[in-house]
Parts: sequence; C-alpha cells; structure tokens
Amino acid sequence: MSHPHPELGLPPALPQGALRIVALGGLGEIGRNMAVFEYDGRLLIVDCGVLFPEEEQPGVDLILPDFDYIRDRLDLIEAVVLTHGHEDHIGAVPYLLRERPDIPLVGSRLTLALVEAKLAEHRIKPRLQVVADGERCSFGPFDCEFLAVNHSIPDAMAVGVRTPAGLVVHTGDFKMDQLPLDGRLTDLGTFARLGSEGIDLLMSDSTNAEVPGFVTSERDISGAIDNVFRTAEERIIVACFASHVHRVQQVLNAAVKAGRKVAFVGRSMVRNMGVARELGYLEVPEGLLVDPKALDELPPEKIVLVCTGSQGEPMSALSRMANRDHHQIRITERDTVMLASSLIPGNENSVNRVINGLTRWGARVVHKGNALVHVSGHSSAGELLFLLNLTKPSNFMPVHGEWRHLRAHAKLASLTGVPDENIVIAEDGVVVDLIDGHAQITGAVPAGYVYVDGSSVGEITETSLKDRRILGEEGFVSVVVVVDSSTGKVIAGPEIHARGAGIGDQDFQEVLNRIDAAIAESAAEGGADVHQLRQKMRRTVGKWVSESYRRRPMIVPVVIEA
Amino acid sequence: MSHPHPELGLPPALPQGALRIVALGGLGEIGRNMAVFEYDGRLLIVDCGVLFPEEEQPGVDLILPDFDYIRDRLDLIEAVVLTHGHEDHIGAVPYLLRERPDIPLVGSRLTLALVEAKLAEHRIKPRLQVVADGERCSFGPFDCEFLAVNHSIPDAMAVGVRTPAGLVVHTGDFKMDQLPLDGRLTDLGTFARLGSEGIDLLMSDSTNAEVPGFVTSERDISGAIDNVFRTAEERIIVACFASHVHRVQQVLNAAVKAGRKVAFVGRSMVRNMGVARELGYLEVPEGLLVDPKALDELPPEKIVLVCTGSQGEPMSALSRMANRDHHQIRITERDTVMLASSLIPGNENSVNRVINGLTRWGARVVHKGNALVHVSGHSSAGELLFLLNLTKPSNFMPVHGEWRHLRAHAKLASLTGVPDENIVIAEDGVVVDLIDGHAQITGAVPAGYVYVDGSSVGEITETSLKDRRILGEEGFVSVVVVVDSSTGKVIAGPEIHARGAGIGDQDFQEVLNRIDAAIAESAAEGGADVHQLRQKMRRTVGKWVSESYRRRPMIVPVVIEA
Repeated sequence: MSHPHPELGLPPALPQGALRIVALGGLGEIGRNMAVFEYDGRLLIVDCGVLFPEEEQPGVDLILPDFDYIRDRLDLIEAVVLTHGHEDHIGAVPYLLRERPDIPLVGSRLTLALVEAKLAEHRIKPRLQVVADGERCSFGPFDCEFLAVNHSIPDAMAVGVRTPAGLVVHTGDFKMDQLPLDGRLTDLGTFARLGSEGIDLLMSDSTNAEVPGFVTSERDISGAIDNVFRTAEERIIVACFASHVHRVQQVLNAAVKAGRKVAFVGRSMVRNMGVARELGYLEVPEGLLVDPKALDELPPEKIVLVCTGSQGEPMSALSRMANRDHHQIRITERDTVMLASSLIPGNENSVNRVINGLTRWGARVVHKGNALVHVSGHSSAGELLFLLNLTKPSNFMPVHGEWRHLRAHAKLASLTGVPDENIVIAEDGVVVDLIDGHAQITGAVPAGYVYVDGSSVGEITETSLKDRRILGEEGFVSVVVVVDSSTGKVIAGPEIHARGAGIGDQDFQEVLNRIDAAIAESAAEGGADVHQLRQKMRRTVGKWVSESYRRRPMIVPVVIEA
Repeated sequence: MSHPHPELGLPPALPQGALRIVALGGLGEIGRNMAVFEYDGRLLIVDCGVLFPEEEQPGVDLILPDFDYIRDRLDLIEAVVLTHGHEDHIGAVPYLLRERPDIPLVGSRLTLALVEAKLAEHRIKPRLQVVADGERCSFGPFDCEFLAVNHSIPDAMAVGVRTPAGLVVHTGDFKMDQLPLDGRLTDLGTFARLGSEGIDLLMSDSTNAEVPGFVTSERDISGAIDNVFRTAEERIIVACFASHVHRVQQVLNAAVKAGRKVAFVGRSMVRNMGVARELGYLEVPEGLLVDPKALDELPPEKIVLVCTGSQGEPMSALSRMANRDHHQIRITERDTVMLASSLIPGNENSVNRVINGLTRWGARVVHKGNALVHVSGHSSAGELLFLLNLTKPSNFMPVHGEWRHLRAHAKLASLTGVPDENIVIAEDGVVVDLIDGHAQITGAVPAGYVYVDGSSVGEITETSLKDRRILGEEGFVSVVVVVDSSTGKVIAGPEIHARGAGIGDQDFQEVLNRIDAAIAESAAEGGADVHQLRQKMRRTVGKWVSESYRRRPMIVPVVIEA
C-alpha cells in the first residue's frame, strides 16, 4: 500500500491521457469532503462540504477546504457533483460559489433542493442540474453515471466518472439497507455492471470500516420508537438531525398511531422538513403538525416535539430544556426525551451534559446507549466487503474517514484481493494520478484548514488559534507604561490589567514594585529603548507569575509614547 | 424517591442520636469522592479525592471538594477512611492535610502506601493506620468494619459504619469478579451477615448502573493480550492506568511467556509499580525489567514498553509517540500499540487523536473497541442487584455517579424492593440525616468546585473561568489612551492591541479613527471622566468588531493618567 510521505513535493505535470484526483478534504477527517478530478486541463468536483471544529479550533464556526489549489482555475470547473445533502458534503458550496457563482451544481432532486434553500440564505441563485438514478451525462471530458445509494438522508447517489484514463467510481456515503423505508435500494446491479466493465479506481466510504458486520435496517428502529410512545407518561421530545427525513417519518408514523400531535422546533428542522414535505420525501398527514406556540393548548400526553440539539449544541432548544432555561418548555419527571441520533465523535461531553441535565429534572432519557433508536448511515465492514467483491476494482482508494478508518478500509480491500501496490491511502492534498490503469501518489498540494469565524473566511490563522488556546487556558496579564517621547523617561504607569489569569488586583503591588525597580535599573544603566523596555516588562511579569503562581498567562507589555 | 430541591436551605441542627451524611463530592459527577459522617459532634470522612477538569474548566489542573463545610471543625475529624488508592478517592488528601496534618488516615496496606508516596511529594508525613480485610475498629463514636471488595486496583475495601443511629454500609468502588487474579473476592459473606444484622443505609457505587449484565473477569483479557503478543511484529507498547496493578501483571506474564523484556515509562507508572512490587502486589521475575534507556540495545521484537497516556494526555509519552516528537521512540508500521484501559468520558477526542496519530505512521493499534483488552472496575447492573438483594437495606443512597447513573441505580434499588420513600438521591452538598432508621434530605450546604491551578488552590473563580472561555473562543482587543491628569485631555493613543481576535494590525486604522472621533465628540461636549472615556472606547471598539467581523472578543479599555 502507498503511504503519503511527509516530504511529498508538488506533483509533476499531469501526463496526457492521465486522470488526477486531489482530495481537498475528507481524508484524515470526517468532514469537508471534496475531491477534485482533473483530465485534459478540465476539472470536475465531487462534493464540497464543511468540517465542524473541535476543541483545538476554539471559537471557529466552520472549517472549509482550501480552494487555493483551484482558485486560479475556477473557470475550468465543468461541474460540482453533490452526492447528497449533508453539511459535510454541501456546506462549503456557498463559499465556492462566492468565487464563481455560475458553477453548475449537479445532484439528485432532494440534494439540490436542500442546497438551493441553503444558498438562498446566502443570497446566491445557483445553476442547478437535477440528475436521476441511473442517468448518464457528460460534463466536459467527464462522462458521469449516477447510481442510487442508501444513506441516512434520502436521494443519495454514487457517481461513476469515465474519462479516457479509465472508470472511477466514487460511492459517496452509503450503506445497504435491504428494507429501506422508501424502497430505494443501493443499486448493486449497476455497481456489478460497472465492475464487469472494469473499474479502474474505486473510492469508497470508510467511516465504519472498523465496525464488523452489517448496519441494522432503519426499519428496525420502529419497535423502539413505538415502545417509547407506548410507555411515555406525558410529553415526548425527540431530538435528531435536521436532515434525517426517514427518522422523522418514523416518529410521525408513531405519533399518528398514538394519536399525538407533532411540532417541529428549530430553524433547520423546520426548513428541511418543509423542503422534504414539498418534494414528497416526507409524508405528513393533514392536521398532524401544530405550531410550537399552540402546544400549551394541548394536553401533554398528546404532544410530540421534534427538535435539533441531539449533539448537545449549547444554544439548542434541547440544551436549554436540560438547563431549565427554555422559555416555554420546563422538563418534568413525566417527560420522555428520545435522542434518535448518532453521537458524533467530539460531542460526547456535551451530549452527556444534556442527558444528565434532563435526568436531573427526572425526565426519562432514551438514547442509542439504552435502546435501538439509531442506526448508522454508513456501511460497516460487512457491506464494504460486499461492494469490494462486487466491483473488483483494479485500484482502491479509501475516502471519507480518519486515518484509522482509511487504514481499516484499505485492509478490507487487501483481503478481497486488491493488490497492495494498487491500494492508495492518501490524505488531504495528496495527489493521486491514474496513469495507464495504475493509481499512484505523485505529490502533494497545500490543503490546510480554512476557518470561518463570524463573517470572515480564512482570516483566522493558526497563530490566532494558538493565542486563543493560551488565553483560554491561562488568561493574560497586560502591563502598560507611558514614556516621554523625547526623553524616553517613564512618565506614567506601570499599570496592570489581568483577565482569566486568576490574579486579583490586590496581588499586583509586588510586581509593580519589581517593574519600577527594573525600570529604575535600566534608567541607571543609561535608559532603554521601547523594545528593550517591553522585553524587560514581559520578563519581569512572566517571572513573577511563574514564581508566585506556577502559571504561564500571556504577557502583553505595552509602551506608549506621549 | 426524594429529589434534591434547588431551594434547599441549611439543615436544622442534627437531633440527638441521629447520623448526618454530607457528600462534598462524587454525587452528580465521577470524581472527588468525599463523604462526611457526623454523629454526636464528631466527624468521620470516607474518601477524599479529586475530579479532573473538563473543557468548561479551562486551564484548571484539578478540582477539589470544598472543605468549607468542615473547615472550622477539622479538630473534630476522627479519621479519614480511604476505600482504595485511586486519585478520585485519595487525590485531595494532601490538600486536606495541609489544613490539619495529623488527621489519621485509615485504609488497606496498598492504599496507604500509595497515599504515603503521594504525600511524600507534597512533603507531608501522615499518621497512617493500616486495617485488614474483616477488621473492626472504632474511631470516636464510629465503629468501622472493613470488607474486601474487588476493583481495578488491589486491596480495595468497603466499610460498614456503626453508630447508635444505625449501620451504614459504604461500598467504595467495587465489582464482583468471581475469578480475580489475586484470589481476593468481594466479601459477599460479610455483606450478607451485615444484611441479616440490618443495614439501615446502603451507599453503593453507581458508575455502571446503566450497563446491563455483569463485568467480564479481568482474567478474560489474557487471551487478547496473548494474541497481541503472538501477532506483534516488533515492539509492543502498552498504555494503561498507572494504578492498574493486575493489568500490568497480565502484561508482565505475557512478556515472560514471549521472552520479551519490559520497561516502565512515566513517573507515576514507575512510582506505583515500585510500591506494588515492594509490597508484593506485583510479581516481577528477576531480569524482566530493563531501563528505558537500555532499549536501544535490545532487538525490537524483544521489547515491551508499559506507559501511561492511555487517555491521550497531550504531554504523555504515548501522545508524543503519536505526534512523532518523542525523543527516543519513533513509531513504525511494525509497532503494535495496546490501549489496555477504559476511555474516561471527556477524553474521547484526545484518545481518538492518539489512535489516528499512531495509525498514520502505520502502527497497529489494539484498543477496547477492537479487542477485549479492558474490563471495567465497577459493577454493572447485574452485580448491583446481587448486592442490593444480599444486603436488603432499609434505606438506599446511590453514590459515585453522574445524575444518569444515580437515577439508574435508584431504579434498581426500587426494583429489588427498597421502598421509594427510602431511596435518597442526593447531589453534592445535600444533607442526608438518618433519623429513627429513616434516611431523609434535611437541607444543603455549599459544595462547589475548588480549583487547583498551578500553585494556587481556590483562587481561580468562576469569573476567571468565564473570562478564559471568552478569551479562548474570541481573544481580546485592548485599547489604551493616555490623558493629562490635570486637564483630562487625551495626550497619547489610542493604541490597539489584539490577540486571538483574528484582526491584523493593518485593520485597526478605521476603528482608531472612530475612537478619535468619539473622543473629539465628547471633548466638544465638555469632556468625559475616565470612566465615561473607558465606556466610550469599549462601545466604539465593540460595535466596530461586531459590525466588521460579526465577532465578540473581550474588549479591554485602558485609560492612563499622566
């Protein structure tokens, strides 16, 4: 198997007749999926998603792929193919379209409807091209065939990309529920046909490659949901992802059976379920839905709330309920809360806090840890092996996963008989060229994190984040003196301000004396320039804090000339 | 079941002949376990541990129980009983002994040896009283009986506390491994005898009350460990808790079988295994151990490293190896790493980072997610039911758990027949009185977090932490002006400094102009005092950042009079 090398340089020019693939995201992380295909000077992009920040990226709202690799070639993009409507596949589209608004977006009906609703909030009117299961159409040199796949959102697709360099199949996110709620199966027949034709490179979803066996059918959750509805004393509050149309459908079905009314809570839940209902992906019987504001008029045993916040997001309705600061809903011991969702790695603490908060007020909390109220949207190892055996790819490249997932998937491919020298484990920015039927790593391009924070994109740097980490752990101490600009003598200060450093104003006298002494000392030595003065202040304060408190806050010395 | 009420006031005076129990930690959290027993004006403390901070407590090293409740009664403490040697049960002892060094510490041989080694680092020489399984001795009015229990550290004990108010049994942390490595079983016979005598209140470990069934025997891990040893290509690196003597013993046994040498890495691992070996809890064949510095002289297939860092602690040897910045050990694809430990909630991200880092360099990583290399130290629901049925307590109080665990345990007690009105769910600081054989909540005392940060204890306040959270998410912008102390006129500045705010120096001109304008405006209105000037600067800068960047850094206005 090929390993990316830390010393990879820029790749050589792409040989005539070869295909280049560069993932700008999604390899080595779960999120910001984006693969750039290049053939004969033209580009095709598959997915353009965001990554959600973790604690090492404090204060950041979103993380985008770095578009630098394609920034001066935006006009060469034939299309952006979107495999499905999840944020980690479509979330960066608005940012790409800011740079060139008329890039054609290609995808299934629901996917593009969700993208369109999102872009409307960014005031962008995109060029959309809806494609159907089984459809085949060309975008420049890229001859694309779309295959239905089953996932945790309806209308997901895989895509086969034919160029003279060969046939590449990209699965998107998929699993193989054999009894899907909407009857739309992962199209194994077409995968098999492509396999017979000869797949030169398979790029396949690695998320659950470490998990043995098969994903349980979405349908199998209904028993647990019905059980919750049968045993709930009063209100039922369901939290799940705002895009999980099938999950919500199951809750609606249970509500109908139980004679309860349903209210959607949360902007994205209301928006997405509106889109899904309008397009016929969500069946909502007349009179089932009520306005959240009208809930007080219903008896609590007739109420179902469907809301977001399943990941413990601090500002969500569910978190507010858990903290008892929701303006309308006060949790009692007669409430039942169902977290009908996965627990995305990184959110364990916040979800645990929500569960403990709800439990503290006596609510019964049902979650995937104590009932079958969630199944994954991604193939487990069993299904991945099915796909590998069915498609018999000449070359294999695991995508959509952290290192541990990519490696586990590569191992599965190896077990099914893909030769190790034809398995390419790449990370973001690594250049994979398909040359004469052989996939190989030929270099690397920059593919760092681009941070969205507030209204700025890409302005927050690693330095800012490092500063935030220090400030967040230790706070800061700022010390100011004013010097006479002509004589260089200190005429006011030092004054000290500290925040988050755990040092009270009353504790500063000692260090002020030390600074005074240091200034006097350097004056006796013939004076110091502004730079030296700053250094002296930084060292004096830093030493004092370290000695007195064994802490290392950021020290910010300021010298003002008056 | 009794629920603590947010409006609980201070409790009334304790009636003659009644027993009072106040947990200063451990209820509503996993950590800083500490229960204060009071009878007839005398105090007995069971455990005195620390809690490890989470992301809401940035920069904090440790969290202690608040000793305020007992601070003016330290001389009334008869003894501190330590159930076992884990940090969440003994970690706060040095801080309590700082306030009164001669409080007798009571516990098993290993527990006290570990406490002694820890106190030596704090330069405290404690008064120790070793007690043996089955021993009974009195501390003032508290007649204590000690029972062997099985846990993830040797020599753990439960304690029965008899006073004229009745018999209280506190389990400490326990499980019921029926084939423990050291043959020391949880003493069900004595639990049964105490049950026949009549247990007025059972306080029992709730950690795994949500987990159905029984904990697998520690012994059952050996298969997985042997498997790792059989299949490892070259080095084996084992990470586990520094206190898990039995786990380490199993690794040593496997190393002997495989003809490998073992090196201990990490200060606490070396210290604890030294203590355990000296007291005979760890059997180390002659010649098995080697100095980590001598590793280079051994062939890699003869090496086992046993280190800490199983929770992904950033400064640990294991994290450094994962990041390839360990000075000695460079991970290769021939290395096998075994995380033979639990994953403590809150550490998911950091452990995942370590696994991905190691995997990136090609190492094979074995962990509890893919092999049976860990079993919990705490009883699952099955064992908890055994204990409840065996002891038949009149009253029950779940301890050692977050809200979700306490409630789940309370439900188990209810199912075994403890009347709901005799089940007390308390949180930290809630006062539980055992009066005439009935346990009841009678009030609450302060039991907040006391933070250790650097060398200071209790100086970091919630305000400091709130500041750190803001600084860590958004950074700060500080703006300084110098005013003439006699005229009040601005004579220098404004000058702006920002860190972590993602605003570059070149961006400040606009806001400097705005501040100038604001100052000029107020001068035209007749001038402003220092306070008004500060307010004006804060508002001007805050408004500018919010409008230009949609961000909310901390704004620190400074006015210096010269």
